[in-house]
Amino acid sequence: MQGDLRGDDPLSGYSLVVGDLVGVAVFAASGASAAVAKRLDLFGVGFVGFVAALGGGILRDLVIGSVPPLAFADWRYPVTAVLTSVAVFWLHPQLSRLRRTVLLLDTAGLGLFTVTGTLKALNAGVPPVGACLVGMLTAIGGGLARDLLTGEIPVVLQREIYAVAALGGAILVTILYGAGFVGPLPMVVAAVLITGVRLFALYRRWHAPIAVP
Amino acid sequence: MQGDLRGDDPLSGYSLVVGDLVGVAVFAASGASAAVAKRLDLFGVGFVGFVAALGGGILRDLVIGSVPPLAFADWRYPVTAVLTSVAVFWLHPQLSRLRRTVLLLDTAGLGLFTVTGTLKALNAGVPPVGACLVGMLTAIGGGLARDLLTGEIPVVLQREIYAVAALGGAILVTILYGAGFVGPLPMVVAAVLITGVRLFALYRRWHAPIAVP
Amino acid sequence: MQGDLRGDDPLSGYSLVVGDLVGVAVFAASGASAAVAKRLDLFGVGFVGFVAALGGGILRDLVIGSVPPLAFADWRYPVTAVLTSVAVFWLHPQLSRLRRTVLLLDTAGLGLFTVTGTLKALNAGVPPVGACLVGMLTAIGGGLARDLLTGEIPVVLQREIYAVAALGGAILVTILYGAGFVGPLPMVVAAVLITGVRLFALYRRWHAPIAVP
Repeated sequence: MQGDLRGDDPLSGYSLVVGDLVGVAVFAASGASAAVAKRLDLFGVGFVGFVAALGGGILRDLVIGSVPPLAFADWRYPVTAVLTSVAVFWLHPQLSRLRRTVLLLDTAGLGLFTVTGTLKALNAGVPPVGACLVGMLTAIGGGLARDLLTGEIPVVLQREIYAVAALGGAILVTILYGAGFVGPLPMVVAAVLITGVRLFALYRRWHAPIAVP
Repeated sequence: MQGDLRGDDPLSGYSLVVGDLVGVAVFAASGASAAVAKRLDLFGVGFVGFVAALGGGILRDLVIGSVPPLAFADWRYPVTAVLTSVAVFWLHPQLSRLRRTVLLLDTAGLGLFTVTGTLKALNAGVPPVGACLVGMLTAIGGGLARDLLTGEIPVVLQREIYAVAALGGAILVTILYGAGFVGPLPMVVAAVLITGVRLFALYRRWHAPIAVP
Repeated sequence: MQGDLRGDDPLSGYSLVVGDLVGVAVFAASGASAAVAKRLDLFGVGFVGFVAALGGGILRDLVIGSVPPLAFADWRYPVTAVLTSVAVFWLHPQLSRLRRTVLLLDTAGLGLFTVTGTLKALNAGVPPVGACLVGMLTAIGGGLARDLLTGEIPVVLQREIYAVAALGGAILVTILYGAGFVGPLPMVVAAVLITGVRLFALYRRWHAPIAVP
């Protein structure tokens, strides 16, 4: 687990790596699906999947000075991203029937990446406000890069409670961390809360406001 | 002032931080205005404002190895960027009447960011040519990222004497630094010169040449 | 040659720097040509040329923790990129007659950048899978950034055996490195192979597959 979650990180351990790789896989699937829709070739699908899954974490690691970033230091991360993307490339017609499942997994990935990103920043000594931003960027950075690569204005900047759920979750994690609640349980609760807020917003069709013209 | 301007930086001190935050605010306003025009939501406006204000500095800090970058290490920077963006979100109809003021402030930000970016690179041991490039990238990086996020070809790459003023200013700062003129006065003069060249180019409608077809 | 190729790098030496700068020049020419076609101004042409030539290497150096990146630490790199871009700006009508030559040089740059990028990552202690990815990103990163700056979906993600040749070459270099074949000869062979595969794919109009609709 070289380079993965260092030292006294409260969430280290086998179960977290599995969770982290699930997040990588679902974000890779979202990137690969967008790339297939743009009719990119097999390499392009793998590349956009890689960036969507690992771009946020690479940015996080560069910002906190943890080089080489995990995406390059631990082979399981890129291999998971690329294999998932290739699977999407071959299976995408069937995948459209799994749209709800992918959406649910993507939302779980959002919660997980926010929590681990915020914790890693706090462990690296980033002050609270910065750690919240790093946590949020870890969760949304991959999706941003995916949209830039496929020529879209990032969907996360448009009308969805997505990044806002991540930012709220990052603030919660920072408060819990400051109060000493850093065991696995509070962190799982935070991840579940982020996921729940995002799902509830989807269900109720909540949007962030846009400016009056 | 943790992480802000280190050690023997000739421009450190309260007045510079205030000036730096003014630069952050005006660049955030430019990013937020572009985001409002693209009908992004409140989060998107805050995010594009954050990136426009702090993207150049984040790139600078990554390149000179100063991690975490100031945007994450000093809470006053992101808070200034986000509050300004939110204000633009609510006030943007009135803002159009302030177009000249915003343009003037943006140009002042250009001068200031070029000077501080170049000095930080020189202080970090970057050689002269690289320091000029880092100084220019600090000043134009945020605007570049703003345009990429909102789906535009960066305006700075098109017909304006903007980046050229920054590059000229960075070269001037590097020469002054090499000659030992590193007190506040020469640096203020450099910032004013960059701002003046840019304003004069705007006034005279100077453009950089484009290639003959 | 400060910061260039460190320590026991098997390819260090005068001939490699010359080769590296040839790669910088051809990638700068490709970026500058794209910028001229988009009617960017002289500064924009220089900037896109700089990013196309040096963007991949900057990303590589940030990822392996070699700061400041070579593009800022060694003046010969940015000067080569910018002078080439300016030359393209003035000479571009004649350049269209050199299309085959530029294509050939670009392909040689692909081979060279893959080999040096992979070796630098391995020398910096990046594990094998990560080093292959870093090597490929070094070779294709500049072209990606060029296309993003000029508002295109990156051509490397579409139907061409380009990145795939780089990835295959990076894997070959990593295997040779692991087997102890790190002298100049095996590396030159790898670079020639990458270039040859790319040229053969162009000649035979090979493409990577795209997904069935």
